[in-house]
Amino acid sequence: MQLLLLNGPNLNLLGHREPGIYGSRSFEDYLPELREAFPHLTLEYFQSNHEGELIDKLHEVGFTYHGVVLNAGGFTHTSVALADAVAAINTPVVEVHLSNLHAREEFRQKSLIGRNCVGSIAGFKLESYKLALHYFDGLRPKRVGFKV
Amino acid sequence: MQLLLLNGPNLNLLGHREPGIYGSRSFEDYLPELREAFPHLTLEYFQSNHEGELIDKLHEVGFTYHGVVLNAGGFTHTSVALADAVAAINTPVVEVHLSNLHAREEFRQKSLIGRNCVGSIAGFKLESYKLALHYFDGLRPKRVGFKV
Amino acid sequence: MQLLLLNGPNLNLLGHREPGIYGSRSFEDYLPELREAFPHLTLEYFQSNHEGELIDKLHEVGFTYHGVVLNAGGFTHTSVALADAVAAINTPVVEVHLSNLHAREEFRQKSLIGRNCVGSIAGFKLESYKLALHYFDGLRPKRVGFKV
Amino acid sequence: MQLLLLNGPNLNLLGHREPGIYGSRSFEDYLPELREAFPHLTLEYFQSNHEGELIDKLHEVGFTYHGVVLNAGGFTHTSVALADAVAAINTPVVEVHLSNLHAREEFRQKSLIGRNCVGSIAGFKLESYKLALHYFDGLRPKRVGFKV
Amino acid sequence: MQLLLLNGPNLNLLGHREPGIYGSRSFEDYLPELREAFPHLTLEYFQSNHEGELIDKLHEVGFTYHGVVLNAGGFTHTSVALADAVAAINTPVVEVHLSNLHAREEFRQKSLIGRNCVGSIAGFKLESYKLALHYFDGLRPKRVGFKV
Amino acid sequence: MQLLLLNGPNLNLLGHREPGIYGSRSFEDYLPELREAFPHLTLEYFQSNHEGELIDKLHEVGFTYHGVVLNAGGFTHTSVALADAVAAINTPVVEVHLSNLHAREEFRQKSLIGRNCVGSIAGFKLESYKLALHYFDGLRPKRVGFKV
Amino acid sequence: MQLLLLNGPNLNLLGHREPGIYGSRSFEDYLPELREAFPHLTLEYFQSNHEGELIDKLHEVGFTYHGVVLNAGGFTHTSVALADAVAAINTPVVEVHLSNLHAREEFRQKSLIGRNCVGSIAGFKLESYKLALHYFDGLRPKRVGFKV
Amino acid sequence: MQLLLLNGPNLNLLGHREPGIYGSRSFEDYLPELREAFPHLTLEYFQSNHEGELIDKLHEVGFTYHGVVLNAGGFTHTSVALADAVAAINTPVVEVHLSNLHAREEFRQKSLIGRNCVGSIAGFKLESYKLALHYFDGLRPKRVGFKV
Amino acid sequence: MQLLLLNGPNLNLLGHREPGIYGSRSFEDYLPELREAFPHLTLEYFQSNHEGELIDKLHEVGFTYHGVVLNAGGFTHTSVALADAVAAINTPVVEVHLSNLHAREEFRQKSLIGRNCVGSIAGFKLESYKLALHYFDGLRPKRVGFKV
Amino acid sequence: MQLLLLNGPNLNLLGHREPGIYGSRSFEDYLPELREAFPHLTLEYFQSNHEGELIDKLHEVGFTYHGVVLNAGGFTHTSVALADAVAAINTPVVEVHLSNLHAREEFRQKSLIGRNCVGSIAGFKLESYKLALHYFDGLRPKRVGFKV
Amino acid sequence: MQLLLLNGPNLNLLGHREPGIYGSRSFEDYLPELREAFPHLTLEYFQSNHEGELIDKLHEVGFTYHGVVLNAGGFTHTSVALADAVAAINTPVVEVHLSNLHAREEFRQKSLIGRNCVGSIAGFKLESYKLALHYFDGLRPKRVGFKV
Amino acid sequence: MQLLLLNGPNLNLLGHREPGIYGSRSFEDYLPELREAFPHLTLEYFQSNHEGELIDKLHEVGFTYHGVVLNAGGFTHTSVALADAVAAINTPVVEVHLSNLHAREEFRQKSLIGRNCVGSIAGFKLESYKLALHYFDGLRPKRVGFKV
Repeated sequence: MQLLLLNGPNLNLLGHREPGIYGSRSFEDYLPELREAFPHLTLEYFQSNHEGELIDKLHEVGFTYHGVVLNAGGFTHTSVALADAVAAINTPVVEVHLSNLHAREEFRQKSLIGRNCVGSIAGFKLESYKLALHYFDGLRPKRVGFKV
Repeated sequence: MQLLLLNGPNLNLLGHREPGIYGSRSFEDYLPELREAFPHLTLEYFQSNHEGELIDKLHEVGFTYHGVVLNAGGFTHTSVALADAVAAINTPVVEVHLSNLHAREEFRQKSLIGRNCVGSIAGFKLESYKLALHYFDGLRPKRVGFKV
Repeated sequence: MQLLLLNGPNLNLLGHREPGIYGSRSFEDYLPELREAFPHLTLEYFQSNHEGELIDKLHEVGFTYHGVVLNAGGFTHTSVALADAVAAINTPVVEVHLSNLHAREEFRQKSLIGRNCVGSIAGFKLESYKLALHYFDGLRPKRVGFKV
Repeated sequence: MQLLLLNGPNLNLLGHREPGIYGSRSFEDYLPELREAFPHLTLEYFQSNHEGELIDKLHEVGFTYHGVVLNAGGFTHTSVALADAVAAINTPVVEVHLSNLHAREEFRQKSLIGRNCVGSIAGFKLESYKLALHYFDGLRPKRVGFKV
Repeated sequence: MQLLLLNGPNLNLLGHREPGIYGSRSFEDYLPELREAFPHLTLEYFQSNHEGELIDKLHEVGFTYHGVVLNAGGFTHTSVALADAVAAINTPVVEVHLSNLHAREEFRQKSLIGRNCVGSIAGFKLESYKLALHYFDGLRPKRVGFKV
Repeated sequence: MQLLLLNGPNLNLLGHREPGIYGSRSFEDYLPELREAFPHLTLEYFQSNHEGELIDKLHEVGFTYHGVVLNAGGFTHTSVALADAVAAINTPVVEVHLSNLHAREEFRQKSLIGRNCVGSIAGFKLESYKLALHYFDGLRPKRVGFKV
Repeated sequence: MQLLLLNGPNLNLLGHREPGIYGSRSFEDYLPELREAFPHLTLEYFQSNHEGELIDKLHEVGFTYHGVVLNAGGFTHTSVALADAVAAINTPVVEVHLSNLHAREEFRQKSLIGRNCVGSIAGFKLESYKLALHYFDGLRPKRVGFKV
Repeated sequence: MQLLLLNGPNLNLLGHREPGIYGSRSFEDYLPELREAFPHLTLEYFQSNHEGELIDKLHEVGFTYHGVVLNAGGFTHTSVALADAVAAINTPVVEVHLSNLHAREEFRQKSLIGRNCVGSIAGFKLESYKLALHYFDGLRPKRVGFKV
Repeated sequence: MQLLLLNGPNLNLLGHREPGIYGSRSFEDYLPELREAFPHLTLEYFQSNHEGELIDKLHEVGFTYHGVVLNAGGFTHTSVALADAVAAINTPVVEVHLSNLHAREEFRQKSLIGRNCVGSIAGFKLESYKLALHYFDGLRPKRVGFKV
Repeated sequence: MQLLLLNGPNLNLLGHREPGIYGSRSFEDYLPELREAFPHLTLEYFQSNHEGELIDKLHEVGFTYHGVVLNAGGFTHTSVALADAVAAINTPVVEVHLSNLHAREEFRQKSLIGRNCVGSIAGFKLESYKLALHYFDGLRPKRVGFKV
Repeated sequence: MQLLLLNGPNLNLLGHREPGIYGSRSFEDYLPELREAFPHLTLEYFQSNHEGELIDKLHEVGFTYHGVVLNAGGFTHTSVALADAVAAINTPVVEVHLSNLHAREEFRQKSLIGRNCVGSIAGFKLESYKLALHYFDGLRPKRVGFKV
Repeated sequence: MQLLLLNGPNLNLLGHREPGIYGSRSFEDYLPELREAFPHLTLEYFQSNHEGELIDKLHEVGFTYHGVVLNAGGFTHTSVALADAVAAINTPVVEVHLSNLHAREEFRQKSLIGRNCVGSIAGFKLESYKLALHYFDGLRPKRVGFKV
């Protein structure tokens, strides 16, 4: 099972800055742990601060991947274009967030992206990604992974 | 590790009604599958359509359980009292929902409960509960389970 | 034809208090008049100030009753849980109110319950119940009474 | 007892169009059934797509009729002028709607007309008119019919 | 003079949890101090996390008590039903809060309950109750205590 | 100087109904008093409950009249079409109201018509018309009366 | 192919007034140019300042015309009744506006009419009508013209 | 008949600045013209940029004057305290404005002051004062001037 | 213990006007009763209709008084400047109101001042001041009175 | 006459996905049909999912093209930067959309882009582009194409 | 070049209170530093907690000063009257704030004053004044200083 | 001291277009003047219309620069991602704007970027940049430049 981990703006800074808030691990450090935990999943990782590159990547996804784990960062709340891209493809997308959106500023409590995703996981720091992979791993025996 | 699965209003109807939407399994049917999947977790289950009983149950939680998986149903969006109860206890609470709130009616997109929870998992049908248990199961080796 | 008359919070006070506004008859006084006016209908009556008991009662309804006349009182405008309960059952529910909601405070002009009911009757004081029963009585020859 | 059935814009199309939604009966077809059901009531019927004609008709009402059953159609939500006309006359007006306003678009959930009516009946298709007539028929023995 | 002290959801936790915020005294500890300070007042105390039980209690009040001191907790901002119960009875109700609502979250700054109370006292921690009793104690010589 | 007094919906009822509020004089009764008070002004009077007729009348105005005194009744707050008609003509229009809009319901506090008028006079009952005529009478010596 | 050009309030003033804004041509002047440009289309023209007449005209349309080009003027933003009429008929309606609504006042940026139209063309002055006819002309070879 | 002309902030600049907008006459220049036009009225004039002085002046009014013409300038839209002062006194107050509030910025379209005034006159430049005096002059024969 | 009673706009009219609403006692009449009731408190009284004078007075307070009882009248809802003054000083301020703000107009339900006060007491007419003094009197044995 | 067809995010997917909604033609397939229909127009085509590339392209436009047909996709509703780019250039821009924005979700009904465009064409699927080209083709004989 | 430094409510407390937030320097301490840094500018300083005095001072400004540096404190967000005073004079006004308004409470993020100022400088503590003087100092060689 | 001048979308057009509004100087023309005015500061300049490139640039900043002067153009009001980037780095950022945001359209009055900046300077055209550099130049002797 082929999955894409897609990270949006500022997530390249993980572990380098504000360790008090986001922990002292970069996503690159965390990736091997994820791969080890899910040996049956093939995980590709892509990060960009460019909305257009994230949209381009989602467009390529359909033919190669069975699912996407998407942390759209600040685009979550503002990008109709990215949300449209999620809706336009057949591959199921799971939205993840490090922090719990419901406990943050008003403008972060609404997810435009989320309305087109299978589901949403937020608040478990880096573990949010692991829970999303548990979801896809649970689908594996059933050989699913495409939206109806 | 002792966990409470706490379900709010109308979730006692799962499996009996509207199987096209919510599937044909009741939560009681699903519970053994959960217990089997997480042999190291002791799971108690409580459901009520009464806001007051859910608050009472949360108050008892602190001394007995290491965590709560809470699906507050329709109270999610309206009950300040239930949200206050989550805030008042030391036990970490994870919010789960069968459906993806961001893809539903406007009034379901805001979670009052969520602002006091560790995190939120929504949209994966009954699997939402399993993902929540994965979170607690991942904490187990670290022997944590109390809010700081 | 078996019908449930379901009254929510504060409606137990009818006739005892504020007779200038709500008239000097209690609902218990009015019930025999209703039964006499509709001899072909079997009417059960239940009142509670507890949201959870109203939800519980609605859940039991499907197997026993052909219809429900519901005056949810103050829960009309605030209870997503009760509205969900109305949506979850197959039995048709007619919403009634003693006063005309459109002529009252802003926060009483919106009915959360109403979005899941067959129809709404408001403003005719106790006669609102009679009009709701006329609706069910009119269905009788057609032997209907279950939502499609 | 003399009553006016007053229908607003687009209700002349009933039965001719969109039978899947509004049924295959025109109001003219339904009128004899209403008259037969209420032999003690004299029913006049007037329909117009012109807001001004509806206001004119309401102004004439006071001296001739004991009550009005008003389905103001799309004017329900927008016409302060029509609502003022209802307030300006002494004859009691009952508001009816074929569909349940609480279950429709946001802009249809508010009734400007309703704030000046005795009561409101919505959602029972053509039967809404019959319920309104039951209300007036119930007043008959008491010989009332004028607002205080 | 017979008074009811009525506490809503989560107030049973006072003194047991979050002592940094709410102090280390439970309401049960505080009650004797109140009784001692107001020897001419007979104080009954009732707490519940159930909205319905609070409404039931308010309904019983009229015949037994001269006044109510009500801390409705989280129901203050959401319960039309409880607010209606306060309006429905003749006994004067004084609203109290431990914290100053005007200095808290937006959703806590509006009191639905308050619109039907004599007055409101907020922000003085447990002393808020004492100030409310001073109000009733001041009425004592005038033998009043019923709303006009 | 030729002026049009243009009255909108429900103003034909003045003096006939609700004399407690609007006084016991009809506008037809009042008109001779106006004509007598302003002998140098030629006053034509037109009233309609039809928005379209008011727009038609305003369109004819430009070639015949030096000014318009407009009481648009309920259309004041809702009719973009009537407001556009006022904007489309060269003749100056003065808006009058019997009641003080700022002291009425929220939806009556905004005037769509007013944004295209010279000025607005409200709250002086029938005297509002007299004040509007004082304005035009004051312009007379200067022979003006057309918008720039 | 039979088409109706339907103009709402104040559009009869085109060319006569405010030539700086709306140009110096009346719609009657423009009509021959339209007919010449589309020799395969039969164009009827109707204008009214009366909302009711526009609704009446739309009701007649279904049996005679293959399409409607509608400029509802100020009714665009306020008339639920006219929007309902567009929804009630089978003939496709194209909404046109002389000015670009998105560049005007806030209250002109929302089109109630538009939600029931095939499409919307705004901002090209009189050419907006020509573009709408290009749309219908393009449908001609396919012999379509009725909504599904 | 004794009247007070009360002008609020920035109105002392009339005639000195921005003559293109407000004309080249100061209020002091205009005052003799007003006095000449209304020989039966005794007019006192007071202007202040201090909200407190305007409130103080209104408090003194009751015992000395039969009416007040108030242009509250920018306080019109923001001062609850000044509006309360108008409500607190028995003397009738007429609100005037040089410009037409309905044609200005959103925040100037609401008048807090106006809700407590007899009526409102806006948009006639300095003539607004004259119209207000016509109102009081019309009351003179009837010897009224105190609110009921 | 030295306390300042600080009254804002229009409160100098207490007892002189509208006795039906505010009672027939002026604050000056009530002051001796307050002083008698609290012999251990030294009470200074200051009233002004000038926002600036109230701010000036609050600035002087810190060095002389142990507490302030503030009724800011209409400034309560509008004055950020006065609220900032309360925040800027160390002396604890208790907000009082004669009427219950939660039961009044929408714009009076929000207190800008309140967010910086210790607590709020509203609705007990003149007794509100007495309850505020009870609060300070209760602090006396503990010799506190300065914000931390 | 040189024109740029500029397509924003997700429009590269046209014809490849969701053919039920957007038809089975890609824009590349459609382009030759457009070129054939307008032989006097030279059409360049550019698509990007990157907001910055669309802005860059608009900046180059002024010196090379007489007009732009812009479908900004999801950026229509969110991008102030793109709207500023349209405003900053002299070349006229016509906004097109495949679907009718007025009939879609609330957040798609407002066009930030549109406020700076000549006009807007929406709802005619791929034909929207053809109508836009008809507009520019109609300008050709007049040799215009630059904003004044 | 003659400049006025105009400080609004509570700014007289600078340096005396809350030194943790606002620093330990009073504005009087800071003034000599400002004068030394800008030897070519003549700086007058005026502070008041009275809105009226600030308006009065602004009115005097035009004839004496080439520019004003205004920190309106809490009046920034609420005073239409003060904003009107800034608009009414010819002297350019620069708005300064100690704190960054965009990073504070919602109600402090809007500046009524700012809409009539040349520009706005906020967030640099006392240095905000120095930056404003740099602006005027930069104008000096060009001998400007009056609004066009 | 090393500073980055970072300009967002459309600022590359400065001087080339709309000289009436933005002046006839490009930023490249202005840069030497800035460098000359601040000989102790090393200024790098970067402009992009791509949100992602601006975020990337901000990420690089921390290790090379002591401060950033950021004009985010249209992204100021819409980009949570860019605002997050400002928050994520340690280097202090000063926000500048050519025009005064408080005097422009409603949607430009809110700055998402600003909430994470040191301060904001707006309205002084190109001089806004100079004032920002004065701020950093003033810090120089103190050798600061990193957020705490």
